[in-house]
Amino acid sequence: VFLSWNTPRARIYREINNIDENLGTAVTVQSMVFGNFSDDSGSGVAFTRNPATGEASFFGEVLFNAAGEDVVAGIRTPLPLSAMQERMPGIYDELHGIQASLEQHYRDMQDIEFTIQEGKLYLLQTRSGKRTGRAAIKIAVEMVRQGMITETEALLRIEPSHVESFLHPMIDPEAERLVIAQGLAASPGACSGKAVFSADEAVEMAKQDEPCILIRRETTPEDIHGMRVAEGILTELGGMTSHAAVVARGMGVCAITGCSSIKVDQAAGTAETIPIGAAAPLVIKRGDIITLDGTKGEVILGTVNTIAASADSDFQQLLAWADKYRKLKVRANAETPEDATKAREMGAEGIGLCRTEHMFFAAERIKVMRAMILADTDGERKQHLDKLYEFQFADIRSLFTIMDGEPVTIRLLDPPLHEFLPHDEASAREIAQQLGKPAEVVLDKVQQLREVNPMLGFRGCRLTVLYPEITEMQVRAILSAAAVVIQEGKEARPEIMIPLVINVREVRLVTDIIERVKRELFQQNRIFLPYKVGTMMETPRACLGAGRIAREVEFMSFGTNDLTQMTYGFSRDDAGRFIPEYLNQKLIVADPFVSLDTRAVGKLLKMAIQDSRVANSRIKYGICGEHGGDPESIEFCHHAGLDYVSCSPFRLPVARLAAAKAAVMR
Amino acid sequence: VFLSWNTPRARIYREINNIDENLGTAVTVQSMVFGNFSDDSGSGVAFTRNPATGEASFFGEVLFNAAGEDVVAGIRTPLPLSAMQERMPGIYDELHGIQASLEQHYRDMQDIEFTIQEGKLYLLQTRSGKRTGRAAIKIAVEMVRQGMITETEALLRIEPSHVESFLHPMIDPEAERLVIAQGLAASPGACSGKAVFSADEAVEMAKQDEPCILIRRETTPEDIHGMRVAEGILTELGGMTSHAAVVARGMGVCAITGCSSIKVDQAAGTAETIPIGAAAPLVIKRGDIITLDGTKGEVILGTVNTIAASADSDFQQLLAWADKYRKLKVRANAETPEDATKAREMGAEGIGLCRTEHMFFAAERIKVMRAMILADTDGERKQHLDKLYEFQFADIRSLFTIMDGEPVTIRLLDPPLHEFLPHDEASAREIAQQLGKPAEVVLDKVQQLREVNPMLGFRGCRLTVLYPEITEMQVRAILSAAAVVIQEGKEARPEIMIPLVINVREVRLVTDIIERVKRELFQQNRIFLPYKVGTMMETPRACLGAGRIAREVEFMSFGTNDLTQMTYGFSRDDAGRFIPEYLNQKLIVADPFVSLDTRAVGKLLKMAIQDSRVANSRIKYGICGEHGGDPESIEFCHHAGLDYVSCSPFRLPVARLAAAKAAVMR
Repeated sequence: VFLSWNTPRARIYREINNIDENLGTAVTVQSMVFGNFSDDSGSGVAFTRNPATGEASFFGEVLFNAAGEDVVAGIRTPLPLSAMQERMPGIYDELHGIQASLEQHYRDMQDIEFTIQEGKLYLLQTRSGKRTGRAAIKIAVEMVRQGMITETEALLRIEPSHVESFLHPMIDPEAERLVIAQGLAASPGACSGKAVFSADEAVEMAKQDEPCILIRRETTPEDIHGMRVAEGILTELGGMTSHAAVVARGMGVCAITGCSSIKVDQAAGTAETIPIGAAAPLVIKRGDIITLDGTKGEVILGTVNTIAASADSDFQQLLAWADKYRKLKVRANAETPEDATKAREMGAEGIGLCRTEHMFFAAERIKVMRAMILADTDGERKQHLDKLYEFQFADIRSLFTIMDGEPVTIRLLDPPLHEFLPHDEASAREIAQQLGKPAEVVLDKVQQLREVNPMLGFRGCRLTVLYPEITEMQVRAILSAAAVVIQEGKEARPEIMIPLVINVREVRLVTDIIERVKRELFQQNRIFLPYKVGTMMETPRACLGAGRIAREVEFMSFGTNDLTQMTYGFSRDDAGRFIPEYLNQKLIVADPFVSLDTRAVGKLLKMAIQDSRVANSRIKYGICGEHGGDPESIEFCHHAGLDYVSCSPFRLPVARLAAAKAAVMR
Repeated sequence: VFLSWNTPRARIYREINNIDENLGTAVTVQSMVFGNFSDDSGSGVAFTRNPATGEASFFGEVLFNAAGEDVVAGIRTPLPLSAMQERMPGIYDELHGIQASLEQHYRDMQDIEFTIQEGKLYLLQTRSGKRTGRAAIKIAVEMVRQGMITETEALLRIEPSHVESFLHPMIDPEAERLVIAQGLAASPGACSGKAVFSADEAVEMAKQDEPCILIRRETTPEDIHGMRVAEGILTELGGMTSHAAVVARGMGVCAITGCSSIKVDQAAGTAETIPIGAAAPLVIKRGDIITLDGTKGEVILGTVNTIAASADSDFQQLLAWADKYRKLKVRANAETPEDATKAREMGAEGIGLCRTEHMFFAAERIKVMRAMILADTDGERKQHLDKLYEFQFADIRSLFTIMDGEPVTIRLLDPPLHEFLPHDEASAREIAQQLGKPAEVVLDKVQQLREVNPMLGFRGCRLTVLYPEITEMQVRAILSAAAVVIQEGKEARPEIMIPLVINVREVRLVTDIIERVKRELFQQNRIFLPYKVGTMMETPRACLGAGRIAREVEFMSFGTNDLTQMTYGFSRDDAGRFIPEYLNQKLIVADPFVSLDTRAVGKLLKMAIQDSRVANSRIKYGICGEHGGDPESIEFCHHAGLDYVSCSPFRLPVARLAAAKAAVMR
């Protein structure tokens, strides 16, 4: 025991957790009792409640004339406690009484080790017992009903992982699994299906009602139609906030990203991996059945039994308590009517991030978008923008209608324009033909728009600087949709969000457009529109200059994905290559795309809040990066004084719980 | 006059320069004198010294029976003042006396407007006269000699632009120029030559002693051999810190980047532009002669007269005064013996940035580098690293020898590995053949290393995490070279710089390697090596966590190129597309890659200094981004408490002057 204090592992553990080197460790020396002393001796383990289901019944196992290690070793099969009740009724009653006292004393389900020597009962240990997610919630809720613990104690006892099993199918923990590769647990859940290697194949499979898993090196917005129909998504590249990860979480689809031990050959339709311990590589071919465990990041060969997701009344009760205590509002990231409906169902108090670009990727729409981008004249662009306006107007109108009265934060167009254009020559030629333009002109434009570092390129509100007409179209669609919804007797609360801001002048550029459109619409329909304007805070510069920006906005939403990328200089699309090794070598404690880096990114966030609050005390603060659904990050957000977090609809229960825990802690 | 106070231009000017709206403007009303009243009347302009050469001789022009505007209008040809000396000797003597008094009073060369009415001399105006760079320096130095001004006053009167003419050839300001396109003034100077469209063509031209201008869409490290021999470089894309701009400034070669009005077709070997006011496009073909004005960013058709660069004794005197007063040390960014020699000649007090990757791009070396990257096994990699070690050792040894005793800051390998690999399939196949590897394997590796956002990718000290053997090779080369130079009786002061740091653990990873190599070398040769270890501070995270990093380093060098990229989310390679429009619409006051953004990037820098100084008061601070050669940024660096700036050898005189001005100001 003393030697173990100085193992390298223990040292690193203390360093990471800031445990004083001088604390030392303790050893208790005590006399031993022997369960294998005689036939009226024995050893066993008991739980005050069922650790698998949470049911409130005394539960355990015993072996007569056996030591504790015999129970654990599994050489002899232990008997249920009822066997002890028959053979040693006195001891059983004594143990039964003690377990009730222990649970009452510790106010939690106990895992008890006991030994009987010559008819005398000894307790070796009692501790709070490990339990499944479902059991944890059932026990906590019942203990509140029994008056043993308070509502806030119940909340504090539930881990976010406990909630997962209510939200996503899980792989049966008892099932055999042949793990062939390990990636990042990008989106929780479990699914099985036939391997496909392109979005189009996925759509084909779906038509035949064949469940499929879409395998790609990485995904792009062009793959969306396949991602929507696949059971699960597996990518070789990309981290926890890569396109595949973000989209999958948003759709509640199971996904594994950054699975670098698999080499995907999209053209050939194969994925090669060398399973740990295997001599020869294993090749997954089109149509082979695989299973993904998105909760653990494991790729499994063949089908594995899964347990379906289902919410029950205990779960609903717990969430009701969470809502009662939390201070943070929760909103959802949502673009489609389905997302918005799901969001309300999951308890969203508004939409915190509607990515308008997602509205332009459907087949008929991307054609118009491309025509707009490739337009030769302002007049031609205007004509396509008018068509895009119709789509945008209809989509946003339906969001307002569904969210009736709840705020809907709509982000203006964010990605670089080349994301909408094809990347290969053949598709470019095809598009040229569709648009009746010379292929060279289209190829030239595609080439021209290409960027070395698109993440740091011509995107966000920078688009407004060169193409104010795109912004004007979007603003008109948002405000007109709000006007129509209000005329229909519903409430609409648009919040227009400006992406990738670096300074206040960019904000003014956009607010000037909004003001102008608002005046025009007011002259048309005499409706007073109660909209708000705010910024994404996603460049370090915006955070460092928040005091100036504050005067022109009513809300600030921290886009911590991009903020993390820029603060670290980690591209979310490329860092998947080295983050695992950083974690492995303990160079970082956690993936900063999963859990908000409170030291640097959090510092920027706090500085921004502090400086902007001085300049404008009425600003509302939110977070809409992927961290909005991460419990640790939510705790940070609560303490940093944010007003709301926004995450994918499927993460809302976790967010509600995490927000409540942060509020009631200490 | 009163109306002009409220023109939009004036309003924006006041906003940018923080001039109070309520100040108002003033008008002086006075009676008029008439130079066109009679034949004993006249008007003229005089300078107390020659504004073109700086020569201390009274100088000017006069027109008899003429008003002031006639002198300026150029309809009548003015006469030299000697004509007045003949015709109105009394007036001439009076003016001559007055000009001497005025110069003595204002202690600067005066530009005087005068009118004579009926034989009486009136002075309309006197002000400090505009002058050429050469004149400015000559006048300032002579006035110090004459006891009229102090050395520090002389320094304050010299603008950095005044120094340019001593350092680079300039286009004759009198020459006619047909400007066909305008780009960014990326590297000053002037040059003419035949247009070429590839590095290989440039080399061909150089072999025939034909001066040439290399025109590219953008340049990459693969173009270096062509850039070295070209007279000048012109690129369609890229900003002030693009590859072309940085390399050109480093080599002192004239360059224009981000010249987006030119469309370059590299394959066809043409560049198309529509000159302002022209109806038809103009096509520059291979072999056409063009001239670049790198000081103004103008592309000119044909040849234009240039004035050669030359330093004189006045210039040297001024720099000597600068060295006397400045607090900031100046170092050079240099990799080759030529750079280092030039750096010493230009006054460098050390090398502030030696980019080791530049040592691997020469034809024979890049082959080894590629073989190392494409190695299948650790053994194979080791073998190629041993060869790279030889190159690295020899190069660094020669730098130490040249810099004898001055510090040499050597940055460990920084760029992503794919920068060393070819980007097209044909070259990849060729390399595969050279290395005796299957083409597919090489293509696969190239594909695998490709990144979406290389700027935020697998580079800098991240390479150490996956390939510690590369770092070890570099460290061994640096320390062994130092040992050999010391054994030869010279002094060697290596400073090992770790690039792209995000936290202190990365630093420890590298210092562990350095410690190990040092111990091994000490056992071999028993030489005590006085090296230092430091970090590039170029991610926002490093700056925000500088306090922790401080404990492990002896110097910190702010890499403000990358820091600006990450703080703004502006890729230096892509921002050229929108920065001109940002400047045009006054959304930013200056290009942040040219002039350090003191508000946000500067704030990070100051925070880093403050936090790290608390943890370790002995740290030395430097800057080695392109801002190290920018006068305004140097002023900021002085006030921020930096110890040195590092810039290209050709910027050193400007840096020395700017550092001195910052030190003596107020």
